Amino acid sequence: MTSTRPSGRAADALREVRITRGFTRHAEGSVLVEFGDTRVLCTASVEESVPPFLRGKGEGWVTAEYGMLPRSTHTRSAREAAKGKQSGRTQEIQRLIGRSLRAVVDLKALGERQITLDCDVLQADGGTRTAAITGACVALHEALDKLVVAGKLPANPMRELVAAISVGIVDGRPVADLDYAEDSSCDTDMNVVMTASGGIVEVQGTAEGAPFSRAELDALLALAERAIAQLVEAQKRALAG
Amino acid sequence: MTSTRPSGRAADALREVRITRGFTRHAEGSVLVEFGDTRVLCTASVEESVPPFLRGKGEGWVTAEYGMLPRSTHTRSAREAAKGKQSGRTQEIQRLIGRSLRAVVDLKALGERQITLDCDVLQADGGTRTAAITGACVALHEALDKLVVAGKLPANPMRELVAAISVGIVDGRPVADLDYAEDSSCDTDMNVVMTASGGIVEVQGTAEGAPFSRAELDALLALAERAIAQLVEAQKRALAG
Amino acid sequence: MTSTRPSGRAADALREVRITRGFTRHAEGSVLVEFGDTRVLCTASVEESVPPFLRGKGEGWVTAEYGMLPRSTHTRSAREAAKGKQSGRTQEIQRLIGRSLRAVVDLKALGERQITLDCDVLQADGGTRTAAITGACVALHEALDKLVVAGKLPANPMRELVAAISVGIVDGRPVADLDYAEDSSCDTDMNVVMTASGGIVEVQGTAEGAPFSRAELDALLALAERAIAQLVEAQKRALAG
Amino acid sequence: MTSTRPSGRAADALREVRITRGFTRHAEGSVLVEFGDTRVLCTASVEESVPPFLRGKGEGWVTAEYGMLPRSTHTRSAREAAKGKQSGRTQEIQRLIGRSLRAVVDLKALGERQITLDCDVLQADGGTRTAAITGACVALHEALDKLVVAGKLPANPMRELVAAISVGIVDGRPVADLDYAEDSSCDTDMNVVMTASGGIVEVQGTAEGAPFSRAELDALLALAERAIAQLVEAQKRALAG
Amino acid sequence: MTSTRPSGRAADALREVRITRGFTRHAEGSVLVEFGDTRVLCTASVEESVPPFLRGKGEGWVTAEYGMLPRSTHTRSAREAAKGKQSGRTQEIQRLIGRSLRAVVDLKALGERQITLDCDVLQADGGTRTAAITGACVALHEALDKLVVAGKLPANPMRELVAAISVGIVDGRPVADLDYAEDSSCDTDMNVVMTASGGIVEVQGTAEGAPFSRAELDALLALAERAIAQLVEAQKRALAG
Amino acid sequence: MTSTRPSGRAADALREVRITRGFTRHAEGSVLVEFGDTRVLCTASVEESVPPFLRGKGEGWVTAEYGMLPRSTHTRSAREAAKGKQSGRTQEIQRLIGRSLRAVVDLKALGERQITLDCDVLQADGGTRTAAITGACVALHEALDKLVVAGKLPANPMRELVAAISVGIVDGRPVADLDYAEDSSCDTDMNVVMTASGGIVEVQGTAEGAPFSRAELDALLALAERAIAQLVEAQKRALAG
Repeated sequence: MTSTRPSGRAADALREVRITRGFTRHAEGSVLVEFGDTRVLCTASVEESVPPFLRGKGEGWVTAEYGMLPRSTHTRSAREAAKGKQSGRTQEIQRLIGRSLRAVVDLKALGERQITLDCDVLQADGGTRTAAITGACVALHEALDKLVVAGKLPANPMRELVAAISVGIVDGRPVADLDYAEDSSCDTDMNVVMTASGGIVEVQGTAEGAPFSRAELDALLALAERAIAQLVEAQKRALAG
Repeated sequence: MTSTRPSGRAADALREVRITRGFTRHAEGSVLVEFGDTRVLCTASVEESVPPFLRGKGEGWVTAEYGMLPRSTHTRSAREAAKGKQSGRTQEIQRLIGRSLRAVVDLKALGERQITLDCDVLQADGGTRTAAITGACVALHEALDKLVVAGKLPANPMRELVAAISVGIVDGRPVADLDYAEDSSCDTDMNVVMTASGGIVEVQGTAEGAPFSRAELDALLALAERAIAQLVEAQKRALAG
Repeated sequence: MTSTRPSGRAADALREVRITRGFTRHAEGSVLVEFGDTRVLCTASVEESVPPFLRGKGEGWVTAEYGMLPRSTHTRSAREAAKGKQSGRTQEIQRLIGRSLRAVVDLKALGERQITLDCDVLQADGGTRTAAITGACVALHEALDKLVVAGKLPANPMRELVAAISVGIVDGRPVADLDYAEDSSCDTDMNVVMTASGGIVEVQGTAEGAPFSRAELDALLALAERAIAQLVEAQKRALAG
Repeated sequence: MTSTRPSGRAADALREVRITRGFTRHAEGSVLVEFGDTRVLCTASVEESVPPFLRGKGEGWVTAEYGMLPRSTHTRSAREAAKGKQSGRTQEIQRLIGRSLRAVVDLKALGERQITLDCDVLQADGGTRTAAITGACVALHEALDKLVVAGKLPANPMRELVAAISVGIVDGRPVADLDYAEDSSCDTDMNVVMTASGGIVEVQGTAEGAPFSRAELDALLALAERAIAQLVEAQKRALAG
Repeated sequence: MTSTRPSGRAADALREVRITRGFTRHAEGSVLVEFGDTRVLCTASVEESVPPFLRGKGEGWVTAEYGMLPRSTHTRSAREAAKGKQSGRTQEIQRLIGRSLRAVVDLKALGERQITLDCDVLQADGGTRTAAITGACVALHEALDKLVVAGKLPANPMRELVAAISVGIVDGRPVADLDYAEDSSCDTDMNVVMTASGGIVEVQGTAEGAPFSRAELDALLALAERAIAQLVEAQKRALAG
Repeated sequence: MTSTRPSGRAADALREVRITRGFTRHAEGSVLVEFGDTRVLCTASVEESVPPFLRGKGEGWVTAEYGMLPRSTHTRSAREAAKGKQSGRTQEIQRLIGRSLRAVVDLKALGERQITLDCDVLQADGGTRTAAITGACVALHEALDKLVVAGKLPANPMRELVAAISVGIVDGRPVADLDYAEDSSCDTDMNVVMTASGGIVEVQGTAEGAPFSRAELDALLALAERAIAQLVEAQKRALAG
C-alpha cells in the first residue's frame, strides 16, 4: 500500500533526527534536538541544593520546565510570561519530561543537588514533547558527565538512556512520529517514553475522535518500540560525538 | 497465593462502589460517587452558550473542573483559591475528565450549549480522578436527560457510558482500584478510561519506580477491562434507580 | 397575623438544624452543619506550629477559610481557584469566622499550635456564614477534645460555645434565619454571633434598601438572642452524641 | 470621673474634624477629610457608563476603592500594587464604603453612569474607614452637584447625607472616635454608619477581647448617634463653603 | 521671540517649585514636592535590615516605589492594587528613582539598613518622575539626618544632592520642565538626573515623533543643567528650613 | 595606549555581528542576530487587527515582547512564565524596542494591522537589548516586504533602518559594544538607538558608579554614532542577501 502521509513517509518512518550538542555555551548541558521541522533547545542546569521537601535526605532531584517561543507556531501564541501563568498543557508536558528523566537517574547517587532541564521550543511541527524528552536526556547526560569530570560524582548516575516518540492513528492507519498536519487530524494520539533496554516509562494514549481498540493499541506500541530504538541510536551517536 | 493488599482485597477486586444521584439540589445533574473511602461530588451545570472558540459553529462543549477540599486528604493541603492558582496536577486531571466525557457525547447533537462538570473531592483515598470520571458520566447523563424532558433535545446525545479505573503494580503484582496506601507505594500506576462497549478512550501509565514491561502493561489492561465492566453496571443501576 | 414567609415559618422559627459529626474521616474535627437546605462541611485541622507573627510567643492561633462549591448555588459561580483569587465576600466571611472562634478560645492555653477551620458550602440556601460559624465551633471543639485525649492539652481551651444567626427585615417584618428567597429580597440583613452565655461577639447589620431604625435593630437583636440559644442547644446535643 | 483617654478627650468628644473641598483639581469631587491626625483623600470620578451587570437597566452605580499609602502608618506596610493583591481588610473596607454611599443615592435618578469614590489614606491614626465614608459623601455630593450644573441631572440624587464613626469600649468605658492608641487596645470596636435623619445604614461591632453585653451595645449606639450628628454638621458646613 | 508655551513660560522657565518638609508625621522623612500642579508625596522609611542579596556584606540599600492615585490624572486610571500588577511604566520609574538616589549615597557608610522612598503622586500635570526624584532626595536626606542625630551614623552618607528635570522639544523649540499639555504633544522628551556638582547620573531621551539631532540633544542638556541648579537651590532651602 | 578590554578589542571595535534571516519558518520575519556570543531570535508576526485604543483610526501598531531563556545566562534565572510575571527590566526593554521601531515606521501607511516583534535571547553576553533592536528592525523590514509582495501594502512603510549599540566607560575609558564582563564592571552604561541617517531615537545613559561628565557623554555619543553606521551596513547586507 502506498503512503498516504502528507510527508510521503512510510508508516514507521521517523522524520530526520538531529541532536546537536553544545548549542549554547553557559549551561552544563545544552542540546538542540530536531525531529524534522520541530526544534527544541534543551539545557541542563546544575544547582548544588535541592528543593525544601528533599533537604537533608541525601537525594538529588531532576525537574523540567517547558516553553514555546510565541512564534514557534503557525500563528503567534500569547507569551505565557505576559499572560502571567503557564497553561495546563505546559504544566502537563513539563511534569511528563521531569518524570521521564527521573525514571532513569539514580537520585541517591546524584546526591543533594538539583538538575533543571529547560526545554524551549524554537520551532514547532508536532511532537515537541517527545523531542524534548529525547533531547533533554542527552543534555542531562552531558551535565552529569561534567560532574564526574569535576570529581563531584564517582560515576554518571544515569542508568540508561530514555527517549520518547508520538504514534497515532491517522486516516485509520497507525503511524509513527506525527508531524503537525497529522497531529491535528489524527483519531488517536499516543506518546510513549521508553528506555534503551525497552522498559516502558510512560504511555499516554488519547482517543481524539472515536475510542480505539486493544488491537490498535498493540499496533501503536509496536511502532513506538521500533522508533525508540532508532532514537536511542541517535542519542548514543550524539554522546559519542 | 494469598492477597497481600493492605485492604485484604483480591488483586482484581474493586472497593465498594456507590453512586448516589441527586446528592445536591441546584445542579442539573448531581452525583456523589464513592470508591470505598474516596468520595467525589460531581455536578453537571448546563449553560445555554458556548465558549468563544465554538460560537456559531452549531456544536456544544463539555468541560470539567476538579478540586480537592483542603482537608479531604490525610494532612491538610493549601486551598488553591487562597494560593491563587491551580496546581499542574489539578489541571491535568480536569483536562482528562473533560476529554473522557467529550469522547462519548455527540457535540453536534448537543447544540450550542456547554455543560460543566464540577468534580470536588470531599474525601480522598486514592483513585479520585477515576471516581470523578465515573461519577461525572452519570451526572452528565442526568443533565442531558433533563434537556430531553424539557424538549430542548430530541434524544440524549451521549453515545454510551464511560468509566475509569486505576490499575497498578504493587509489590510486583498487578492489582485494580488502588487505594491511597497502594497508590503511594506502587511501582507502576495506570489510569484507564473505557466505554461501555470496551473502546479505549485514554490510557495513562507511569512507571513510578522501575520501568515496566510490555507483559505487565498487558496484565494491567486486562484488569482494567474487567473493572470497567463492573463500573458500567453500577452506572446503569444508578441511572435506572 | 399569619406568616408571610415563603417557607410558611413563624417570624422567629429557625429552619431544621442538623449537626452531623464525623462527616469525613481525615480531619481532627469534621462536621456537616445544615440549616434547612444550606449545607456546610466544616473541618478542623491541627498543625503543631503557628504563623510567623506568633512564633515564640507561647500562644496558639485559630483561623478559618471559606469556599463555595461552584454549583452549590442556584446558578453556577466561577471557581475561585480557577479565577486565581478569592472574592472580597469570601475574604470577609472567612475573617468573620476566624474572629468569632478566636473570641471563645484561650489562645495562651492552646499553646503554639494552629487550628484551621475549613468551611466549604456544599449547598447554599441563605445563611451560609452563620451555619459555618455554628458548625465550625463544633468541629473545633471536637479537635480540641482530641488534643486533650492525646495528652497534649490538660483541658479543652474553648471557654464556651459560640453560634451565629442571620436576622433581617423582610416585607417590613423582623424574621430569623433568612433563607435565600428572603435574603435576596430583604430590606435589612443582620448577622449576629453570640456565645452560649449571651455575650455578643459580632454584630453586622446592613441596610440593603432603606436605612433601619433603632427600634428595628432592637427587635432584630431580640430575635437573634432566642435563635442563638436554640443553636447552642443543638451544638450541645451534637457534642454529647 | 476624669478622662483616661490617651488624648485627654472626654468619652464622647470627637477629634477635630476638617473637611477640605477641592484638595486636588482633576476629580469631579475632591475632599481631604481629617479626623485629628487621620487624613484621607476622597475623590469622586464620574464615568458615563455602568458595569456590565447594570447595562440597559436605566440605573446608575456608586462604588468605592480604598488604599493606604505605604507609609501612612507607624511602620511601613507593603504596597498592595507591588504585592499584586488587595488584602481582605482593604476589600472589606471598600465594600463598606460603597454600600454606605449607595444607601443614600437614588440610583434610578442617577441614570446609567457610575461614580467611583477613591479613598486614599495619606496618614493613619485610627478611624480611616469612618473618615473615608464621611469625606466620600461630601466628594460624591460635589460630583453630583456638578452633574446638575452641567444639565445632566435635574436634581441631586443624594437623598440625605451619610456619615460614619467608630465607637468602642476602652478600659471598660464606651468612647467615641477611637484614635490608633485606643483602637489597638480596645475590647470592643464598632463602626456605625448613619444618615442625617438618624437612619442606620450599617452597624459592625466586634469583640476584640471578651464578648460585650447588650447594655454596652446600647451605650455605644448612643455615643455613635451623637457623633454622627456632629459629623453631618461638618459635612453641611463644607458643602455650604 | 514671544513664548508659545501653553503656560506662557519662557523656554527655560521652571514652574513654581515648592518643597514642604514634614508633610506627614510617621515617616523618617516626609516631603511634599510640587512642580506647579504636579504634587508628589515622598516618604523615606528606614528599616534595620537589608534585602537577602546584601545580607552580611556590610552595605546598605536605597530603593524606591512609585504610584499614582487613581484620580491624580485628568481621567481616572485603574488602581494598580486592584489590577493586581504594576505597569511597565511604574516599574521603569521606580527603578529610575532608586538608581538616581543610590548614585549619591555611600552605601558602605549607610551600613546594613535599607531606606525605601515611596513616591505617590497626589496630582499629576507632567514631570511626576522628575519631581519625585527631586523630592525623594530631600526626604532621604532628612531620614539620614535623623540616623545621625540618633547616633546610628557618624555622618550623613549622602555625598551630594541630586535632582531631576524633564526637557523636551515642543513645536520645534527646546523647553524645560514640560507640563502635561506639552508632554503629550512634544516631539522629544528627555529626563535628566544630575548632582549638585553637575555630574550626570541619568539621561533618558526619547524621540516621540521624528528622531532628534545631536544639536538638539546639546540644547536640551544645556537647559537641563541650568534647571538642575535651580532645583538644587530649592532643595537646599528646604533642608535649611 | 594598548587595549585593556577583556576581549582585546579596540575601544571602538564591535564584536562580530551576524544577522541570519529565515532562522525559523513560521513567522513573517525571522532573524537570528548575534553580537559576538549574544544571540537573540527576533520574529515579526503580522496580525490584521489593532489593539482597542487604535480601532477605527486607520493606523497600525508595532509592538515588542522580550524574554530570556532561563539558561541563556551564566547562572540559571527563574522562568518568568513560572514566576507569573515579567520583571521590571523585561518590561523596560520591551517598551524600548517597541518605541525604537515605531520611530521609523509610518503607522498611517501600515494601515489597521499590528506587527509584534518577539525578541528571545538564546544566549546572553551583554548588549541583548541593542542586539534585539538591531535584529528586530531586519525582521520587521522582512515582514513589511512580504505585505508589499502580497499586495497588501503599496510600499514598505519603514522610513529608514534603525539600530542600537551599548557604549560605556570601563576602567575610565569610553568603549563600544560592551560584553558581559565589561557590562558588569563599567562605571557608566549608555544605550543609543539611531537611524541610518543619524537621527537619535533614544539615549539612555546611567551612571552605575560615579556620575559622568558632559565630556564623557560626548565621547560616548561619538563612539555610538560610528558603531551604528557599521550596524546599519550589516542590516543592509542581510536585507540584500
